[in-house]
Amino acid sequence: MSGVAAHTRLVDRCGERMARCLLTYCIDGADALMMALLKGAPHALAVFTLLVEGLDGHDDTERRHAERALDHLFSQGAARWGCHVKPQGLQAFHRALKRWRARLQSLPTWEYDALTAWMTHAGTQWVVIPGDDLWPERLGDLAVRSDWAPPLCLWGIGDRHALAACSSPVAVVGSRGVNEYGRHVAGEIAHEVAMQGHTVVSGGAMGTDAIAHWGALRAVDTMGGGQAGRTIAVFAGGLDHMGPTCNQRLFEAIRAQHGALVSEMCPQTVPEARRFLLRNRIIAALCPTVVIAQARRRSGALNTAHWAAELNREVYAVPGNITAPDNAGCNELIRNQQAILLAGTTADDLCHAAHTPHLPKTDPAPDAPVHDDAGAEGMAREQAVLGALERMHRTGRHATPDTLAEALQADGSAVLSLEQVHATLGLLELQGRISTAGGRIAVCTAK
Amino acid sequence: MSGVAAHTRLVDRCGERMARCLLTYCIDGADALMMALLKGAPHALAVFTLLVEGLDGHDDTERRHAERALDHLFSQGAARWGCHVKPQGLQAFHRALKRWRARLQSLPTWEYDALTAWMTHAGTQWVVIPGDDLWPERLGDLAVRSDWAPPLCLWGIGDRHALAACSSPVAVVGSRGVNEYGRHVAGEIAHEVAMQGHTVVSGGAMGTDAIAHWGALRAVDTMGGGQAGRTIAVFAGGLDHMGPTCNQRLFEAIRAQHGALVSEMCPQTVPEARRFLLRNRIIAALCPTVVIAQARRRSGALNTAHWAAELNREVYAVPGNITAPDNAGCNELIRNQQAILLAGTTADDLCHAAHTPHLPKTDPAPDAPVHDDAGAEGMAREQAVLGALERMHRTGRHATPDTLAEALQADGSAVLSLEQVHATLGLLELQGRISTAGGRIAVCTAK
Repeated sequence: MSGVAAHTRLVDRCGERMARCLLTYCIDGADALMMALLKGAPHALAVFTLLVEGLDGHDDTERRHAERALDHLFSQGAARWGCHVKPQGLQAFHRALKRWRARLQSLPTWEYDALTAWMTHAGTQWVVIPGDDLWPERLGDLAVRSDWAPPLCLWGIGDRHALAACSSPVAVVGSRGVNEYGRHVAGEIAHEVAMQGHTVVSGGAMGTDAIAHWGALRAVDTMGGGQAGRTIAVFAGGLDHMGPTCNQRLFEAIRAQHGALVSEMCPQTVPEARRFLLRNRIIAALCPTVVIAQARRRSGALNTAHWAAELNREVYAVPGNITAPDNAGCNELIRNQQAILLAGTTADDLCHAAHTPHLPKTDPAPDAPVHDDAGAEGMAREQAVLGALERMHRTGRHATPDTLAEALQADGSAVLSLEQVHATLGLLELQGRISTAGGRIAVCTAK
Repeated sequence: MSGVAAHTRLVDRCGERMARCLLTYCIDGADALMMALLKGAPHALAVFTLLVEGLDGHDDTERRHAERALDHLFSQGAARWGCHVKPQGLQAFHRALKRWRARLQSLPTWEYDALTAWMTHAGTQWVVIPGDDLWPERLGDLAVRSDWAPPLCLWGIGDRHALAACSSPVAVVGSRGVNEYGRHVAGEIAHEVAMQGHTVVSGGAMGTDAIAHWGALRAVDTMGGGQAGRTIAVFAGGLDHMGPTCNQRLFEAIRAQHGALVSEMCPQTVPEARRFLLRNRIIAALCPTVVIAQARRRSGALNTAHWAAELNREVYAVPGNITAPDNAGCNELIRNQQAILLAGTTADDLCHAAHTPHLPKTDPAPDAPVHDDAGAEGMAREQAVLGALERMHRTGRHATPDTLAEALQADGSAVLSLEQVHATLGLLELQGRISTAGGRIAVCTAK
């Protein structure tokens, strides 16, 4: 069922998007080792291909080549991230490879179309990846520290344009258990922020999260969809596990009113407790401004505040009476200068200028899932380089990165920067499809 | 009635304490020009003497001498304060002299005993001055800026030892109009602080001030007088004008429970609005820690907070729900980092260690008013120096500050530091009682 032939068929049809979905499936939440590997690789598909080529059943030469190539990419990526890989680091990487491959063995299918259906929960979810217009670039800030990792992709339900509708979304988070005051401020802040055209981001929990979303949706009711900011809920598990059930009506409303429900986890991922802490990093990373509306001393919202502080986000907390434990978390953040005291519920209090959401409120794109592609672009680039190399070889021209870039442009096959040429050559060599022996770039005749 | 003879009789009987009372009577609240003058003079009595000697009726030579001496002291004092006196500064000083002398002319009596009765409100008020054991040294911090001025003395009712019973008193201030929450926190904080042995300082107004005092007094009820901190109310007018009347029972209770009611203003001074702002500087100066319990946006308590910040006091503010305007002032202080958020009502929240009040709770001293004296000490010093100079003159010894200091010590008349000798000589010369012509110190035979 998962034999070498099935592997090859899947890899051949894979694009960058599916490769990122599959790599997410392999890892268990944020994985800095995977991130280092991807930093060293030209694209995720290259990593996925090498992972597959190292699986049991593939011939030993291929597997050894894959291992060497992965080690090389990992070291290169770590170096780019400012780390020197020590023996223990490489051992940890090898253990990770083992884990990832074990996960791959548990993949429900290797058949591309079935896999696409599985990854999109039968076409009900979309996937955005880095390089997409809609990819929220701020998630990249999660790579500022070499022990963190940004998500490899985001699954979503609803309007994917919500992800790019606002240049400065505001996260509104807080405790699940809120009192009347917390309920009031969370709702008001989200409402005011959305009235100014800003996107509101929160989790999907009861209490503050739900109140914030409803507050934003109320702005849509007031202003109409085109003017009000949207609302985005970020989940800790796969989107087929969205909870709690008491919020189902809210999730439906978010979806119906051009908001989005997103997660970095692929379908069927259970939202375990520890995933909520990792989910919080995404809420913080998505927004330049994070508001803690009401939080008790040990609220998960404080974890979001800490992520936000680490990411240099502007963190606001709403103070409250010191006689109610409900405000102790917010008061503590303010006292420790980890948050600015938010003295009012208007957007002005956050120093945010009003703006109109950037994009049409409706999603004109079909619910196209995994196969449009940035990865396809990478593959097209590889084909163009290989073609140009073969032509140069036939015409007896000496191939260097520079002459290759010229040749590509001259024959109209592709316009690549020198950097892109280098990256593509590196990948092709890793794949064993070219060699650079003797200072000469040569195409390997048979793989 | 206020003839030269009466002046001379008063000056002759005056000590430093009465001199400071009289100078306070001359000025209208904090007066930086008077402060500069006092900084240049050996003691307040010298300043008062020269002020009197410049009054109408005194002979012209005496008046010219007094004017020159005052100019000299003022310039010297300003220089010690880091200011160079420019012509405009001297003009302002001359206008002030005129004002002060006009005030002196309105003195109800020049008869010493009647004046003592007037200044102590018939013996019901005591006066403490710099140099007294009980003088709160922190008031001197009000001289850190040359446009401020510490009080010249403090009038008091109740137990004067309350002024020195605690090395780190806590000011608890806030709005007059408080809600249930503000009432609760002000009372709790003051109570907790007093339970830890700390003195509580506040104004005498309704609302936060009164609640804070009652909170401290409750600690006396709980712990007994010897263990609990005392409470001190600072007033903006003379202590015969203590208000509001609805707080009379409170003022009685403070007095009965070994607290103190104090003011920098002499009897019969009306507590005008602007005096409350000056009064606030005394509350801030008395305490290393200032707590704003609840304050609206334009509360006078914010003025106290600003004084406290200027004086490098630790300023705390209690946050509150942003939906109530009652907390807007406190929240603003915290947001602008002018105050630390106070998250609880215990002394621990203020990082204050408990301690036992330093001094016996009862006041063993009689209600002695104005005439014990630091000024008397100054006069004794002048007599000793004059005596020694005369003896040196008789024995043909050359008098310099150094030989004079030796002579004073040798004949047992006084042990003065060289600095004290210089200061005393300067004063005697200003008074025209000695001359330093030809590098030789000579006693003027007739004044």
